[in-house]
Amino acid sequence: MSDQPVNVPGAPARVFADRHVGPSPGAIEEMLKTVGYGSTAEIMAAAVPESILTAPGRNAPLDLPEAIGEAETLAELRDLAARNKVVTPLIGQGYHGTFTPPVILRNIMENPAWYTAYTPYQPEISQGRLEALINFQTMVSDLTGLPVCGASLLDEATAAAEAMTLARRASKSRADVFVVDSDVFPQTLQVLRTRAEPLGIEVVVADLSQGLPDGDAFGVLVQYPASSGVVRDPSALIAAARERGALAVVAADILALTLLRSPGDLGADIAVGSTQRFGVPLGFGGPHAGYMSVTEKLRRQIPGRLVGVSVDAAGRPAYRLALQTREQHIRREKATSNICTAQVLLAVMAGMYAVHHGPHGLRAIAEQVHAHAMDMADALTARGFEIVHASFFDTLRVRVPSADRVLENALAAGYNLLRVDAHTVGVSLDETTTPADVAAVLNAFGESGRAPEEGAPVVDEDRRRFPAELARGVDYLDHPVFNTHRSETSLLRYMRRLSDRDLALDRTMIPLGSCTMKLNATTEMEAVTWSEFAGLHPLAPLDQAAGSVEIVRDLEAWLAEITGYDAVSLQPNAGSQGEFAGLLAIRGYHRSRGEDHRDVCLIPGSAHGTNAASAVMAGMRVAVVACDEGGNIDLDDLRAKIARHADALSAIMVTYPSTHGVYEDTITEVCRLVHEAGGQVYVDGANFNALLGWAKPGEFGADVSHLNLHKTFCIPHGGGGPGVGPVAVRSHLAGFLPNHPGQPEAGPHTGVGPVSAAPFGSAGILPISWAYVRMMGERGLRTATEVAVLSANYVAKRLEPYYPVLYTGANGLVAHECIIDIRPLQKASGVSNEDVAKRLMDYGFHAPTMSFPVAGTLMVEPTESEDLAELERFIEAMIAIRAEIDKVAAGEWDALDNPLKNAPHTAEEVTADEWGHGYSRADAAYPVPSLRRDKYWPPVGRIDQAYGDRNLVCSCPPPEAFEL
Amino acid sequence: MSDQPVNVPGAPARVFADRHVGPSPGAIEEMLKTVGYGSTAEIMAAAVPESILTAPGRNAPLDLPEAIGEAETLAELRDLAARNKVVTPLIGQGYHGTFTPPVILRNIMENPAWYTAYTPYQPEISQGRLEALINFQTMVSDLTGLPVCGASLLDEATAAAEAMTLARRASKSRADVFVVDSDVFPQTLQVLRTRAEPLGIEVVVADLSQGLPDGDAFGVLVQYPASSGVVRDPSALIAAARERGALAVVAADILALTLLRSPGDLGADIAVGSTQRFGVPLGFGGPHAGYMSVTEKLRRQIPGRLVGVSVDAAGRPAYRLALQTREQHIRREKATSNICTAQVLLAVMAGMYAVHHGPHGLRAIAEQVHAHAMDMADALTARGFEIVHASFFDTLRVRVPSADRVLENALAAGYNLLRVDAHTVGVSLDETTTPADVAAVLNAFGESGRAPEEGAPVVDEDRRRFPAELARGVDYLDHPVFNTHRSETSLLRYMRRLSDRDLALDRTMIPLGSCTMKLNATTEMEAVTWSEFAGLHPLAPLDQAAGSVEIVRDLEAWLAEITGYDAVSLQPNAGSQGEFAGLLAIRGYHRSRGEDHRDVCLIPGSAHGTNAASAVMAGMRVAVVACDEGGNIDLDDLRAKIARHADALSAIMVTYPSTHGVYEDTITEVCRLVHEAGGQVYVDGANFNALLGWAKPGEFGADVSHLNLHKTFCIPHGGGGPGVGPVAVRSHLAGFLPNHPGQPEAGPHTGVGPVSAAPFGSAGILPISWAYVRMMGERGLRTATEVAVLSANYVAKRLEPYYPVLYTGANGLVAHECIIDIRPLQKASGVSNEDVAKRLMDYGFHAPTMSFPVAGTLMVEPTESEDLAELERFIEAMIAIRAEIDKVAAGEWDALDNPLKNAPHTAEEVTADEWGHGYSRADAAYPVPSLRRDKYWPPVGRIDQAYGDRNLVCSCPPPEAFEL
Repeated sequence: MSDQPVNVPGAPARVFADRHVGPSPGAIEEMLKTVGYGSTAEIMAAAVPESILTAPGRNAPLDLPEAIGEAETLAELRDLAARNKVVTPLIGQGYHGTFTPPVILRNIMENPAWYTAYTPYQPEISQGRLEALINFQTMVSDLTGLPVCGASLLDEATAAAEAMTLARRASKSRADVFVVDSDVFPQTLQVLRTRAEPLGIEVVVADLSQGLPDGDAFGVLVQYPASSGVVRDPSALIAAARERGALAVVAADILALTLLRSPGDLGADIAVGSTQRFGVPLGFGGPHAGYMSVTEKLRRQIPGRLVGVSVDAAGRPAYRLALQTREQHIRREKATSNICTAQVLLAVMAGMYAVHHGPHGLRAIAEQVHAHAMDMADALTARGFEIVHASFFDTLRVRVPSADRVLENALAAGYNLLRVDAHTVGVSLDETTTPADVAAVLNAFGESGRAPEEGAPVVDEDRRRFPAELARGVDYLDHPVFNTHRSETSLLRYMRRLSDRDLALDRTMIPLGSCTMKLNATTEMEAVTWSEFAGLHPLAPLDQAAGSVEIVRDLEAWLAEITGYDAVSLQPNAGSQGEFAGLLAIRGYHRSRGEDHRDVCLIPGSAHGTNAASAVMAGMRVAVVACDEGGNIDLDDLRAKIARHADALSAIMVTYPSTHGVYEDTITEVCRLVHEAGGQVYVDGANFNALLGWAKPGEFGADVSHLNLHKTFCIPHGGGGPGVGPVAVRSHLAGFLPNHPGQPEAGPHTGVGPVSAAPFGSAGILPISWAYVRMMGERGLRTATEVAVLSANYVAKRLEPYYPVLYTGANGLVAHECIIDIRPLQKASGVSNEDVAKRLMDYGFHAPTMSFPVAGTLMVEPTESEDLAELERFIEAMIAIRAEIDKVAAGEWDALDNPLKNAPHTAEEVTADEWGHGYSRADAAYPVPSLRRDKYWPPVGRIDQAYGDRNLVCSCPPPEAFEL
Repeated sequence: MSDQPVNVPGAPARVFADRHVGPSPGAIEEMLKTVGYGSTAEIMAAAVPESILTAPGRNAPLDLPEAIGEAETLAELRDLAARNKVVTPLIGQGYHGTFTPPVILRNIMENPAWYTAYTPYQPEISQGRLEALINFQTMVSDLTGLPVCGASLLDEATAAAEAMTLARRASKSRADVFVVDSDVFPQTLQVLRTRAEPLGIEVVVADLSQGLPDGDAFGVLVQYPASSGVVRDPSALIAAARERGALAVVAADILALTLLRSPGDLGADIAVGSTQRFGVPLGFGGPHAGYMSVTEKLRRQIPGRLVGVSVDAAGRPAYRLALQTREQHIRREKATSNICTAQVLLAVMAGMYAVHHGPHGLRAIAEQVHAHAMDMADALTARGFEIVHASFFDTLRVRVPSADRVLENALAAGYNLLRVDAHTVGVSLDETTTPADVAAVLNAFGESGRAPEEGAPVVDEDRRRFPAELARGVDYLDHPVFNTHRSETSLLRYMRRLSDRDLALDRTMIPLGSCTMKLNATTEMEAVTWSEFAGLHPLAPLDQAAGSVEIVRDLEAWLAEITGYDAVSLQPNAGSQGEFAGLLAIRGYHRSRGEDHRDVCLIPGSAHGTNAASAVMAGMRVAVVACDEGGNIDLDDLRAKIARHADALSAIMVTYPSTHGVYEDTITEVCRLVHEAGGQVYVDGANFNALLGWAKPGEFGADVSHLNLHKTFCIPHGGGGPGVGPVAVRSHLAGFLPNHPGQPEAGPHTGVGPVSAAPFGSAGILPISWAYVRMMGERGLRTATEVAVLSANYVAKRLEPYYPVLYTGANGLVAHECIIDIRPLQKASGVSNEDVAKRLMDYGFHAPTMSFPVAGTLMVEPTESEDLAELERFIEAMIAIRAEIDKVAAGEWDALDNPLKNAPHTAEEVTADEWGHGYSRADAAYPVPSLRRDKYWPPVGRIDQAYGDRNLVCSCPPPEAFEL
């Protein structure tokens, strides 16, 4: 169907699609009337070029399982969960058992006020999560001893890769060599290799316990404690590296740092790692927050987001993203990183874990873990086993007659150990380890057959098994936030207070163009925190993960069907990583055909900044293709660029529908032209919500796409991550998808290597998208697309009398979003799109996307999930704001002192005893009557961006800063 | 221990008690210094009479299992859950499978903003849940066709009992006869009998399908559809009853009413029932919201809470409890009901279920259930089985050769059916029933051995199997609230909007004397919504409920140990029901000794209103014992009263510590005097949080107590319920505890009958208290008591310079709460305790208990869960308010126009363009600086109570009423 909306009047709303799609059948009729079409199918036919329609003029069903209801979906997920076998994971390798404090699990990870929030680009309505993130930064900064930390990277391995490229940029050394200790996590090494190769970086692996190898290098990476568990003092190595002009990177275990001297203290320039073991479930590999912290000197080089402190219009301290929201401004061909989505939700959790335990609590946890490890080492020694490294924190390497035998015994007892080689076993303990666990694991070892050495010391005097010179005091987390909320009541209120400062989807639509802020349904979210999914180690044997693997395989198959491609990898844990993986596949393909010289990537001027950055990372040169005044790819320029680069043409990257929110009817022609020239076509799937069920990139000419599961497929934005960016390719590229050293099933053996730390990326949140497809089915998914397009056109049509809509396609229609041009109004009134964005906060809205893709505009994407009442509330606000702009233009309100320039207005300002403005308090706070009943008050006024960058502070300010 | 607080400086806060107890070790020291004691043990020794200390001067440990951590507790609960076997329950009898929409489960039942709220006695900060409750009332009212519905009763059976006593009050008939149809749920009949007997009501059971039996009666009860499933038109019966002056009560299935003509339409005076099947998990019997709706004429007689609409100071419509918050004013010896706690959280859920589905959705659910029942009936008929009643909705009675055989087959296939007798089986279908379920159950029946009748009609023309004259149209739920929130996004935001209007424990301390608003820890809450606990039918065979039964048995044993009694019943699902059960035990005991004449219950003037009400319900006469000016029981008056009533003395009911918040040192003497006179001693456990671990009523002289698990044992208040009120007795009363017709294991065979509908009461929430005791252990529980007492004394000491503390005990100490006397200040300034309570809202607080037990006072109970920072915030507010009162007294502020009289101040008022007050806007909104950062704004101003009672509206007002 599709002439018929899913919502049938009078029918029971028991079909999930009816809950997901906002407008009721009656509302859809009303909206169609306004837009001037008889059905949603008609509007799709009018908007989408016939040449790309899956089956022109007809309904070609997707081959997906029949939709089922919420209860049935939960039952199927329960069955899948039951097929996972949760075995206590003592595998380590950067992933550890942890106990998420239930108060954090329920009130952050399971709370829509946190998980449905968007990236904090609008800081005035994001103060809560910004504070939570600055807690995270402070925590990492304190523990690593390096003053500047960003608000999370995707995982430890990609953080290491970012450190590598940062080191290259910052080092004075001209050598293209990055030295890596042989005792790092295998996935870190492999991700470094995947990332180094296209950039011409040579990764030299060496046993750095023997000192630095000869030769120049721009950087050196050492793991601390090492992958094998050994704890060595890296300071001599660091000093040697720095002497040669190389930057020293230390990949450090965040928990071990509560006992060990910090990387910064030891002289490192950069520290990277994972904060997973601070209360973030394993989730079969992710999502977890990676971290990077750097020296003061490198602070302006740090990739990803950095939360800083600035002041608002009234001088209050206020948080915001510092040094620009750089991923929105990634410098195309000069890009150094394509990192965009972070792991905000998980960083918030890890930060709260530290708030919950405080410095002494964290240290006590580490002491306990270390004590268990010592007990185990002593007992094993007593039984005659050789412990490979005498210096350790939580991880032991044990020589055994048969590793397989020990692993088998351990598994029978319910434990996974690490098989290092035929005669070596690894055991990593964690905060959940109990004495009973230690005893059970010891039993799995049995007796060694060798008598214990006579008189071997069993217990050290000081009960520490790492060099005394590495011991640290509690010189971290002395900020009050880590020393106040020890009771659950206090922590609960703190978390509520923070989330109340923010606007998320649970309070308002977030009409962000290109971000697809649709419903994240509770049923979709449920399974994520079930222990069977949440408790799986990413390197667990696959037969213990049958349910999770089935979810992966189902999703791969469904996404292939939906996109028309032949193969899908779910490993990329952000859209940017999907782009990178897709471009690597193209690169691999050309090389496999001996066409190594193809290295030019064409990118339209309107593209997402990440596109160019990803291309550079994939070793390509970027050539920009112009757009015409209609916002479409200029075919003449395209032909010219193809001609100019001729044999060097590698690929074109286009977003479809375009970032201008238009279905360009030249897309098939673009594909043809590039293919004819021997290039590959990359269609960025950021706007796939406008195509799903109606067109398949894999069929209309593209070779590869990435999708954003956190847009089209309902993974919540989490306040700025997690995301999942699967890459989908046609068969000729399938052999060049990512794979993984730890898991042969994770990709083709001919693959390009891992792009993420975990074999299946952020597998822990895939049940969300799985449930979405399972509950929507073909009909529901098609309807969602139709209503998304209808809603965008409805908003465009309703706002047209008040604001010019910048670009439209066939029949004057937009796709799933529309660009509202503020520039003419700004000329007349001085009111900017930023003023409108901030003023919308006074109306209780999150602003649309600002100045992307066109400066001076607002891009509105309502999505299918907003009902007509909410659309009308937004339209009402925009119309009222237009009238306000007119008052400014007419001189009725002062050009500088008006509600738009002064927006947003805090309660404190509007209730001030003095009111010196040329407009009334009611004008400021209650421009429309509905606000009088339920009003959101921004906690701060407009934030001074420049001040914060001039005075960069990116760890928790002292409480006095907030004194009133 | 106890000299040593649980919190040890430097120790990791991994012990749950450290999370539960608010003040840190350092804070405790500081507080002790202020109060003037060296340790918490010292203060306990000074405050508690030595005669009742469990082991005077020493630490007598409770025999409880060693405390374990949160992770371990969850693991144990998982093990217990695994011992329950969830079998699809088709047993019916008032309990049905239902699918709780996940968005409601997560955002209401699992959301502290809803579950930690208190009863909405302070309506200005309770507008959200009051709206949710008025939705519930409107829903029930519409579906039952009776205009006035209260905001929930405890369950269907007790609702029927309340209807019985209401009918007796309202009927003109002088007969003490209540006629009950024989085809009602067994538990309803038994609860009616338990409640009728002490009141001298004769319950006459008759097959009313044969007409009314001869003789007068004050009321008649019929079930609709009946327990057997049959649907009969009750209108003739109702007419006959009314002709004789009897009130007609219809116990109706809420879902069936979407298809069947309403009780009101059929002439009934009263409808009662359960709303469980509207999305509320079975939970092995509860909690669920019972309902009662009545005719306009009876509206002032309805028991329990009634939410009504009034206006606030600015004329805005505003909700509040109508006709007084009557349970606080229960008229002692003239009491008609002791109902106090309701089932608010569950009523909110059921109401939201209707908001979610809307009238058409609910009807479609009912149609589907009915269709499945018809299919099953047809198939059974075709197989030659006799369906006993041709007219039904969802429940069939089937004659079979062997009921046991069919039940066995069904169980093997995963279904529980009802065994009616050896040759009759009952099957009740519900919204979760699928065609596969129908087929599986049919299989369980096999073939009857008899050939189907030739030509028996299989499908009716109109597919309805109840009398055509009973069919109704969709004449219900036409209010917009039931027709707006069809999308999940819309519903999610509606629920958030409502909860944001309220103040619950997740935002502020709620220092309500006698209510013990302590932490409801997430770990305690977790298991409640696990399907193994939530999905159990209360009449499921006990071998399927081994885990739940173990929780019951553990809690019984632990509570016996903690209280010093010998036997405990967890059946009472509210404190009031526990009181009633305890008094019934006393009554049963006297009668068993031939002392039927003992019927006088002594109650001190300071007692909770429910005490007297319960006594009356238990067939006792109440005699009030005076208190002296210190607030203590006047021993001379006690002796006099004992002497006056001599042989008639049945019992004394005392609260300990007293409702004045004082440990009376005469308690052992009181016990002795009453015992000597042949009476029994009932100690009300409302204040048990001041005794736990330090004194045991069962050892210091009492014979029986009830406890409030929703106070001392952490069950959240849910916005006004659920509660659990176990009754604990010494061995001589154990044979007189409640039991249950459906479950012999639920109580002694000599018991007094059921006081609640379900065998184990609200078994679904017992994991909360179980987890609390399990995680606290003896040491944690004792510490909690100590810190609760310390905190109350700290607040009293700090406030003493500003407000007189009304009563103190030994050494000038209070127990766990203190009474602040506002009367002297009121004399000087005109500012009342109500003004202070409302003004506290401007400071972001829920007010303390107002005018109980002493008019003109505020009773403050901080509990052990509030940390020192929050205590200080409260003290700061109270001191600031005292300064405000002084300004009024001094004439600096007008006696009527001041921030106290005008409190609470809405944002709308403080931001109004006109400000006509003699104090500043800042005085109104930001009397202390911390409010400037995070301020709660009450959604309405002070509510006019009288207006609402004069103009009683207790269903949803039309949207126009809120127009601005």
